[in-house]
Amino acid sequence: MKGVPQRKMTYWNVKGTVTDSANEQVRVPNVIALVGLPARGKTYISHKLCRYLNWIGIKTKAFNVGEYRRKACNLEEQGEFEFFSPHNNKGNKIREDCARLAIEDMGRYLDSKEGEVAILDATNTTRARRKLLVDYCREMQHNPPFRVFFIESVCDDPDIINSNITEVKTCSPDYKGIMSEEAAKEDFMKRIEMYKMQYEPIDEEADEELSYIKVINAGKSFYVHNVNGHVQSRVVYFLMNIHLLPRSIYLTRHGESEYNRIGRLGGDAPLSENGLKYASRLQNYFEKEKINELRVWSSQKIRAAQTASKMAHIAQHVEYWKVLDEIDAGICEGLTYEDFESRYPKQFGERDKDKYHYRYPSGESYEDLVARLEPVIMELERQSNVLVISHQAVLRCILAYFTNQNRDDLPYLKVPLHTVIKLTPKAYSCEVEMFKFDIAAVNTYREKPKTDGSATHAEQ
Amino acid sequence: MKGVPQRKMTYWNVKGTVTDSANEQVRVPNVIALVGLPARGKTYISHKLCRYLNWIGIKTKAFNVGEYRRKACNLEEQGEFEFFSPHNNKGNKIREDCARLAIEDMGRYLDSKEGEVAILDATNTTRARRKLLVDYCREMQHNPPFRVFFIESVCDDPDIINSNITEVKTCSPDYKGIMSEEAAKEDFMKRIEMYKMQYEPIDEEADEELSYIKVINAGKSFYVHNVNGHVQSRVVYFLMNIHLLPRSIYLTRHGESEYNRIGRLGGDAPLSENGLKYASRLQNYFEKEKINELRVWSSQKIRAAQTASKMAHIAQHVEYWKVLDEIDAGICEGLTYEDFESRYPKQFGERDKDKYHYRYPSGESYEDLVARLEPVIMELERQSNVLVISHQAVLRCILAYFTNQNRDDLPYLKVPLHTVIKLTPKAYSCEVEMFKFDIAAVNTYREKPKTDGSATHAEQ
Repeated sequence: MKGVPQRKMTYWNVKGTVTDSANEQVRVPNVIALVGLPARGKTYISHKLCRYLNWIGIKTKAFNVGEYRRKACNLEEQGEFEFFSPHNNKGNKIREDCARLAIEDMGRYLDSKEGEVAILDATNTTRARRKLLVDYCREMQHNPPFRVFFIESVCDDPDIINSNITEVKTCSPDYKGIMSEEAAKEDFMKRIEMYKMQYEPIDEEADEELSYIKVINAGKSFYVHNVNGHVQSRVVYFLMNIHLLPRSIYLTRHGESEYNRIGRLGGDAPLSENGLKYASRLQNYFEKEKINELRVWSSQKIRAAQTASKMAHIAQHVEYWKVLDEIDAGICEGLTYEDFESRYPKQFGERDKDKYHYRYPSGESYEDLVARLEPVIMELERQSNVLVISHQAVLRCILAYFTNQNRDDLPYLKVPLHTVIKLTPKAYSCEVEMFKFDIAAVNTYREKPKTDGSATHAEQ
Repeated sequence: MKGVPQRKMTYWNVKGTVTDSANEQVRVPNVIALVGLPARGKTYISHKLCRYLNWIGIKTKAFNVGEYRRKACNLEEQGEFEFFSPHNNKGNKIREDCARLAIEDMGRYLDSKEGEVAILDATNTTRARRKLLVDYCREMQHNPPFRVFFIESVCDDPDIINSNITEVKTCSPDYKGIMSEEAAKEDFMKRIEMYKMQYEPIDEEADEELSYIKVINAGKSFYVHNVNGHVQSRVVYFLMNIHLLPRSIYLTRHGESEYNRIGRLGGDAPLSENGLKYASRLQNYFEKEKINELRVWSSQKIRAAQTASKMAHIAQHVEYWKVLDEIDAGICEGLTYEDFESRYPKQFGERDKDKYHYRYPSGESYEDLVARLEPVIMELERQSNVLVISHQAVLRCILAYFTNQNRDDLPYLKVPLHTVIKLTPKAYSCEVEMFKFDIAAVNTYREKPKTDGSATHAEQ
C-alpha cells in the first residue's frame, strides 16, 4: 500500500525541483587553513577532514603547499633544512611563491563553484602569512567572499611529536630514497627548529577577529573561537570526535536470509539455515579474536538482530540501531530484481544511470542513506573496537567513508554475505582485510551495467 | 508491497528484544556541574541542556542549589548580600548544607537508575567544593561511579553581565516582591562581589585531570578539555551551537492536501484547493512580517514543497529536507484511520496504548522521528529566523522540544492545518503564538482515547 503510484509523474516532477539539501546548507565558500609547526599532524587532519566533508556531500579539496614546493624545485636543488631558514632568501622566495600559487588555485576552485570548501595544508606559522590569506579571501573579486577558518595544531607532548616525526621520516617524499632514516630524522628536526624561529601561534587577544580552533596535544584540549556557519560548526564537532588510538572496526552483513535466497529486496525475513550457521561461526571468530571492549551495533531488522544475538556474551554490549536498517526500497520492497525491472522499467533504467542519487519511490537513495548514517560515522570515530552488523547498502556507505571512495563507485562496492571486513585506520589510509567464511550463500552483487543494460543477481 | 505482514508476529517478537538505542548508548551515569559567578547564565544553560537531553531520550534532571537554600531558610532570615560573604559563618553553614543535600539527592537519582544525567546548578566556585563533588562521584558506593563534567561560564563582557543581572533582578525568587528592582540590582551586584572574593576559575594546569568546558562570553569562545564519552561529547556540541540572539522560529504544516480531505494517512498527495489558498495567504503573511534573513526549510513531500514554493522570493533561500518528511506509517500509508482500525485492530490498540513508542510495521514511531529530527533541532539552535514547513507528527516533535513537553503529551500536541505557530525563545521559556488563518480545512486531530477507545478524526 506504500507510495502513491498513480501520482508518480507528479512526484518526479516535484523531486526535479528539489535541490540537494547537503549543498543547500552551504552557500558561502569556506577556506580552512591549517596552522602549526611541521610534525603536528596538519596533513593528517587535512586528509581526514577532506574525506569526511566529501562523504557528507560538501565538495572539498585539499591544497598542500609542500607538494607545490616539491614541484617548484627538485629535492637536490632544495637541499636540506637550511632551505627552510628564515634567513635563506632563495628558500623564502620559493616558499612564498608556492604558497601564493596554492592560494590562487584554491581561489579558482572556489570561485568557479567547482567545490565549496578548500583546505590549505601549510604551516601558516606567521601572522603576516595568515593576514595575507585572510585579505585574499575577503577580496571583493570573489563573489561571495570566502569565510576563513584556521585549525592550529599545537603540541608539546614529546611522545606525540616523536611518533609524528617517525611517520614523516619513513614516509615523506622529501626524504624517501634521498637519505637514510636517521639522517632524515635529524634533518627534519632541524627543519622544525627553523620554523620555530618565526612561529607566532594564534593569540587570543591579537587574533581576536579570526575564527579558529586550536587542537592541543592531538585532541586532549581544544580552544574554539568565533565559529561561523554550518561548515565550521561541523568541522569543530568532527575534530573533537576523532582520535588516533589503535583500534579496528569490523563490518559484516547479517547471515543469509530467506529473502536473499529467493532474490527479494528488503523486507524483514529471518535467517536461512546457512545464515544461522554464519551467525554461529561469527561468534567463534570473535571468541578467538578476543577483542578488548568490543561493542556490537546491529540494525533492528530480524536477520541482523538474529546474527547479533550470538554476540551477546562476547561483546561488552550489543546495541540495536534503527539507523542501521537497510536502504528503504519503497514500492520495490519485497520484489525481486526481475519484478522491479518488469513492473517499473523506467525506474529500473533511472537507477542504473545514477545509482547514488536514485531514490526508490516512497523509499531512499544512497544519498539519503549517507545523510542518515552521518551520526553513525561520528560515533564510530569516537569509539574504539566496534562490530557493525548491518546490510549491503548501509555497509557500502560506511566502507566508502573509511576507504575514501567516490559517489559513483560507492553503490557498487563489494560487500558479500558471510564475510567479515576488518578496517584498521592508519594515519593516511585505512587497512582493509576481508575474511570470507566457508559457508555457502547466494551472491547478491549486481555489476554496474554495461551500455546494453545487462545485469546479474538481485541486490540493492 | 511494503512490509512482511505474514511475519508480523516474528517481527514483534524480535522488536520486543530490541532495547532503546538512545538508552543503550548511555551506560555510565553523568554528573554535569555548572561553575561560575552569579549572573553568568548557569541556570539558563542548565535548563536548556536538561530540555535537550530529555528530548533526545537521555533522562536528565537539574538540581538547583539555590532552590534548596530558599527552602532551608526564608528570605527574611537569609537577609541580603552579607549572607553570601565567605566570612558569614551561619551563611556558609547553610549554603554548605544545601549543596550537600542537593548532591545527595542527585546521587540517589542516579544510583536508583531513575535518570542517567544529573545537572548540578550551583556556583561551585572554589576548588575545594569541586573536589568534594568529584570525590563523591568517584566513591565506590555508586555502581558504576559517576562521570563528572564541569561547565564553567566565564564572562567579562559588561553588556552580557548587565543583561543577566537585569533578568535576575526582575525574575529571581530571591528578590521578587521583597524589594524594589533598583535595590535588588544593587544587592545582587554586592552578592557577586562576595563570590568573587573566593572564586577560583578552573585552571588549565591545576585542574588538568578534570573534564570540562569553559564557555567564554556566552559562546564567543570555548575551552574544552578531556571530553569523555557520548553524553559529554553531545553536551559540548550542543553548547557550541546555542545562542542568545533574538529571533523567531515559525512552524506550519503544508496547506490542506487531497489526502487530508479524504482522511488518508501519509502518502504524497498535492494540495487541495483550500491548501493552495493557504499557500498564497502564507506568502502574504510573511511579506507583511518582513522578517530579516528568513530561511525556509520544507519537507520533500509534494504538499509541503508546493506550500514552500510560494516563499521563494521572500525568503533568503528555501531548502528541501527529506528529514522533515512526515512520519512513515509503513503498512498503513494511504489508509484512513477507519481502514487501519478494521484491518489491524490489534496494532490500532497498541498505538493508542503508547503512541510515543508505537512503531508502524515497516514504518516509524514518534521516538524514531525524534532521533531523525535531532540534526534539525541542532541546526535550528544555530540559526536565526526560520520557517519550517512540514507535517503534523514532525512539528509535534519540534514543538515539544521548544515547549518542553513530555513524551506522553508529545503525540497529542495540537498542530492544526492552516495555522502558523510562532516560537520566540526566551531565557527560561519559549513564547508560543498561534495564528489561525481563516481558510477552511479538515480537522486532523484525534483526541487521546478514553478508556472506551473512542476516537474522532484521522491523524497520525
